[in-house]
Amino acid sequence: MHKLVLIRHGESTWNLENRFTGWTDVDLTPKGVQQALTAGRLLAAEGYEFDECHTSVLKRATHTLWHCLDAMNRTWLPVHHSWRLNERHYGALQGLNKAETARQYGDEQVLIWRRSYGTPPPALEAGDPRGAQGDIRYRHLNPGQVPLTECLKDTVERVLPYWNESLAPALRSGRRLLVVAHGNSMRALVKHLDSISDQDIVGLNIPNGTPLVYELDEHLKPLRHYYLGDAEVAARAAEAMVSQGRG
Amino acid sequence: MHKLVLIRHGESTWNLENRFTGWTDVDLTPKGVQQALTAGRLLAAEGYEFDECHTSVLKRATHTLWHCLDAMNRTWLPVHHSWRLNERHYGALQGLNKAETARQYGDEQVLIWRRSYGTPPPALEAGDPRGAQGDIRYRHLNPGQVPLTECLKDTVERVLPYWNESLAPALRSGRRLLVVAHGNSMRALVKHLDSISDQDIVGLNIPNGTPLVYELDEHLKPLRHYYLGDAEVAARAAEAMVSQGRG
Repeated sequence: MHKLVLIRHGESTWNLENRFTGWTDVDLTPKGVQQALTAGRLLAAEGYEFDECHTSVLKRATHTLWHCLDAMNRTWLPVHHSWRLNERHYGALQGLNKAETARQYGDEQVLIWRRSYGTPPPALEAGDPRGAQGDIRYRHLNPGQVPLTECLKDTVERVLPYWNESLAPALRSGRRLLVVAHGNSMRALVKHLDSISDQDIVGLNIPNGTPLVYELDEHLKPLRHYYLGDAEVAARAAEAMVSQGRG
Repeated sequence: MHKLVLIRHGESTWNLENRFTGWTDVDLTPKGVQQALTAGRLLAAEGYEFDECHTSVLKRATHTLWHCLDAMNRTWLPVHHSWRLNERHYGALQGLNKAETARQYGDEQVLIWRRSYGTPPPALEAGDPRGAQGDIRYRHLNPGQVPLTECLKDTVERVLPYWNESLAPALRSGRRLLVVAHGNSMRALVKHLDSISDQDIVGLNIPNGTPLVYELDEHLKPLRHYYLGDAEVAARAAEAMVSQGRG
């Protein structure tokens, strides 16, 4: 049996400000740091060990991982960073307050951008300072690979090669993986693992900083999955996200 | 031309307490954190960019690197950890106060352990709780590879394969490396790079948290090297280490 632990980063400054974040590289709040440390303590208390860690190139995920590793006293574990694990790119909405955006475009339109599988928000214009095109961390990509906006379908298509080429081979070779990612890159992985439909995946909410454990069979098919720690707390966290309408 | 930047970790709690540290996994002091942040700011201000980072499996080095990367806004850079970059193993002296050790064994004997190239301190006994034999991070090594004590010669012989098999090939392929290591693993690298004699290397002191830049030719022979930042500050830092007699 293979074990895979997924963690969504802790609360970020823009989670707190209720702004669309996407590829914007905001940091954790103090609460987010505590969530990461708690996740690490939980994993350590349950005796989890890992052979390698994977995360995005965004600092809210990297810092969550580092705090987890600190709490587990495993700061020496190998860490792999990939842009493919980044959050869904939120296009021209990046940086906008979610409530204001709803007032400007209407609730229904915003709900479509946030909750449809195939409709991306308006794209960033070329040269928009919010764009990732000039960012040194994406310089090895083809220009066409750096998105100007993404729907969840785009995110899934961008994340899956990382599953196929990096995570799945590592799991098959017996390595125990800790993956710290984002709400939508985790949705992409969970959709693939549990064969969730395009309709259902957009309604799935993943709480911040709560280890999600997958037990996989030899073909990497899930036997079961569960949140680590207080199940009620995890459920409430997911519920809270739904009611706040955060994507 | 190839560029290689070496940094000795910031001040650790046992640097402060004047205790022999070796492979003991002590953390940075607040001053050590500041030294690491300063090193990162200095590298950023001078426009340094790196393709990959290398450090030991000890947290005072890893945390120094993480703080550097934070200050450079480069938290997404690949980091490689190797036990071969660890500090010299200090055997049965690990954990002992340096002044007390001198009173117990005599100044001359302690000076030999600290400043001779080929005489190791007394070995840890098998089963000593200070030993690294049962430590999960060394489980992939042959038992004979995990030292019970080391002289500087032993450390050099343990570090050089990492130079030959990891650092040198990466440099030759054009990658720009940041290496955060320890007083004696850095001595080992500097001895090799500058062909320093066994006698002279033991007198070379490397200050904490000060970037040491090597410019190397196509054969990885040093063209020149220099400390980054205020030259006088770096010189004073090295001088202070000599007068405190720290190894």
